Amino acid sequence: MSLLSGPPTVVAAGVDVFSAALRAQGADVHDVDWRPPGFGDPADLAALALDRRRAAANRTAVERVMAAGSRLVDVRPAREVLGLPDRTLLHSGPPLTWEMASGPMRGALIGACLFEGWATTVAEAEGLLASGGIALDPCHHHRAVGPMAGVTSPSMWMWCLEDPVSGGQAFCNLNEGLGKVLRYGAYSDEVLDRLRWMRDVLGPVLAAAVRAMADPLDVKGVLAQMLQMGDEGHNRNRAGSLMTLRELSPAVVEVDAPSSDIAAALRFIGGNEHFFLNLGMPTAKLAMDAARDVPGSTMVTVMSRNGTEFGIRTAGTGDRWFTGPADTPVGLFLGDYGPDDANPDIGDSAIMETYGVGGFTMAAAPAIVRFVGGTVPDALATTERMYQLTLAENPAMQVPILGFRGSPTGIDVLAVARTGWLPQINTGMAGRVAGTGQVGAGLVQPPRECFEQALAALAAEARTA
Amino acid sequence: MSLLSGPPTVVAAGVDVFSAALRAQGADVHDVDWRPPGFGDPADLAALALDRRRAAANRTAVERVMAAGSRLVDVRPAREVLGLPDRTLLHSGPPLTWEMASGPMRGALIGACLFEGWATTVAEAEGLLASGGIALDPCHHHRAVGPMAGVTSPSMWMWCLEDPVSGGQAFCNLNEGLGKVLRYGAYSDEVLDRLRWMRDVLGPVLAAAVRAMADPLDVKGVLAQMLQMGDEGHNRNRAGSLMTLRELSPAVVEVDAPSSDIAAALRFIGGNEHFFLNLGMPTAKLAMDAARDVPGSTMVTVMSRNGTEFGIRTAGTGDRWFTGPADTPVGLFLGDYGPDDANPDIGDSAIMETYGVGGFTMAAAPAIVRFVGGTVPDALATTERMYQLTLAENPAMQVPILGFRGSPTGIDVLAVARTGWLPQINTGMAGRVAGTGQVGAGLVQPPRECFEQALAALAAEARTA
Repeated sequence: MSLLSGPPTVVAAGVDVFSAALRAQGADVHDVDWRPPGFGDPADLAALALDRRRAAANRTAVERVMAAGSRLVDVRPAREVLGLPDRTLLHSGPPLTWEMASGPMRGALIGACLFEGWATTVAEAEGLLASGGIALDPCHHHRAVGPMAGVTSPSMWMWCLEDPVSGGQAFCNLNEGLGKVLRYGAYSDEVLDRLRWMRDVLGPVLAAAVRAMADPLDVKGVLAQMLQMGDEGHNRNRAGSLMTLRELSPAVVEVDAPSSDIAAALRFIGGNEHFFLNLGMPTAKLAMDAARDVPGSTMVTVMSRNGTEFGIRTAGTGDRWFTGPADTPVGLFLGDYGPDDANPDIGDSAIMETYGVGGFTMAAAPAIVRFVGGTVPDALATTERMYQLTLAENPAMQVPILGFRGSPTGIDVLAVARTGWLPQINTGMAGRVAGTGQVGAGLVQPPRECFEQALAALAAEARTA
Repeated sequence: MSLLSGPPTVVAAGVDVFSAALRAQGADVHDVDWRPPGFGDPADLAALALDRRRAAANRTAVERVMAAGSRLVDVRPAREVLGLPDRTLLHSGPPLTWEMASGPMRGALIGACLFEGWATTVAEAEGLLASGGIALDPCHHHRAVGPMAGVTSPSMWMWCLEDPVSGGQAFCNLNEGLGKVLRYGAYSDEVLDRLRWMRDVLGPVLAAAVRAMADPLDVKGVLAQMLQMGDEGHNRNRAGSLMTLRELSPAVVEVDAPSSDIAAALRFIGGNEHFFLNLGMPTAKLAMDAARDVPGSTMVTVMSRNGTEFGIRTAGTGDRWFTGPADTPVGLFLGDYGPDDANPDIGDSAIMETYGVGGFTMAAAPAIVRFVGGTVPDALATTERMYQLTLAENPAMQVPILGFRGSPTGIDVLAVARTGWLPQINTGMAGRVAGTGQVGAGLVQPPRECFEQALAALAAEARTA
């Protein structure tokens, strides 16, 4: 009643036509200088909003991502399967030089040179790398992905995955476990000995087992089941690793090798809760590669970090990278390590979030907060928020606690710009000093610059289409 | 304002002293005939409420349940480990005669006679059982438990578990898988062939593997991890079965047996998502047996069903059974089966809920609703409700989605009587016709009679204490 009987007191937020109109009628108006969060040149945003190709292109991109399957068809050395020449190393993230490489990336590159026998001392390896004696190339340029440093050398065995829908292929090396491992930048004898055992024992056993399997492992199916079992597929791969062990073990047991080697292989797989990650990543890569080149689509197809820079690619701009300085994750630390020990964000593993799992399905994995930090309500809220950034819900990747809602899939550069929210990534943290290994795990976001550049490039492309 | 300026309009619920007093002052009162839910003779409820021993006794009972551990120490035939004489069969639930046995219980008893070679035809087995030629005894009378019919015969191999705290032991036979299996009342050649293979191949392989393990499997630890992985430990044992496979497989591989037998054993375990149940049940049994006899405690130590009757035991009344007619579960059916095909509730597996998991931790396993029916919010609400019936929260069994709250543990007969709510059990459903096998899975509650009898007996015991 009193609302209409006295003079109004008005607070106007944002658009000034409202307060101006009220003021013209003599009302008392308080202005709040608020504008929608977000970024991007208004002309670019308008060009994309008005691009007639966009809706259909994004639909095509999403359909390709959803349709892609993933089957484990072989395990082969990188030399053979990627045609990787001698003295070439692959790494995670966008292109990189030795000069700009961070500590853990340098550590992993040094370790790979020692492992391959291209150098016999650390100093020799550093000299070789600094002099340009080793060619460096991103995994993503070879249909491959690698967690953390992602350093892949010719003698490493690769999971070979195939998408039965598109016929596409994707590759990833084998997971070494946690702690002091090459991908976190460690290169001690313990690390190199493990890599040699993986080269000489584990790889051949897995190759023989995978080739003997009557039905290839449906890795996408495993990923879908993981989300029903408390994994999010990036930093929590417990159920996935167990299912992989279950599927491989009968074939592993029948490989013609000493039973001690077989038992050691099973113990190694069973003792590594992240073993599945290196199968999940090429599965996501297969799906995102299916949408690699869809003119007019604003969907992100790659998010990746080399420890110095974060890079993204979009369906509408093909293989072009949009990069910015990598941020440093915030989370929980192992042992005595703390925030000062953490390297900036590193690894191709953000392909999981690009595909709509990992940080995007934290709601499916509430226990992850004990590993990356935060609270269970945060985990639920993160997944809810990611639906605002994505083009679709993937019915194959359901989140039980959200009533089996499909995962938020297909990051839309335009939605990121409009909301100003950035994708949420769960990630491991490497020590910033070469040789350290893992120091923790946490949460991180891409730098806004990547999306600003992608937005501008997509808008430029829209104007000339 | 208007509340005090006009005459009051009052609605009074329950206790009539309020409405009587208002009426005496001339107020207009509407009575609602409401009383607190619940049951029990008021004198019995008062006797228990005033029993000075109760708080301390329940604390002791709960502490023993929480403290109990569970280690897998051996796998041995029932004949040896339970001293089971010839022509004796164990079954689930409270004591039972052939005459009162339901279809699936009869089917399983017939199958066990055929398996043991005590009869060569179904008719012969029925005659033997009907004539009293086979002694029947509850598993629970032998520190054993068995899912569904729970029929355990001398030649079956038993998991042997030990509580390192109390030194207690508990036993359970090996899980056969789902569908047409003895424990669901099926006894076809397929069922008997599988039992023979389990007797001749699987049992010896597991026995050799378990005996060779340097560290015995910590089954309680597996159960705790399952709750972080979307299992509730009764009708969803996927992660638990995978972890068991992971822990056993390196030792299984090194057993001196043909590699085809080893591979078959691994395939059998890997192909059975309920394999862990028969390890989880004796783990719960060990914990509840630790509180088997605590005078003055109103905690339930056993909930179990034989397909005809539901029986419970309490810590304060020792080994006495309180029974009532078993209800029929409501849930989801396999294939063409429907509600008319379901037998009343059967099995010792409600020991999981007695321990505070299974139906009590449905919130940890939202995907279970796809197997037993209901919705995800129902699953969350069920766990929340069970906290009202239980004495404690078990910090070892955490529910991540509830902010890692401990599972609701130790059903209090007094709380059940006061609230009128009954424990919620997830369960498999057996076909009511002998020989059918599994027809579905669903939700069920104990009959109130069990708790009414237990309440009266506990009160009588309190009065004479």
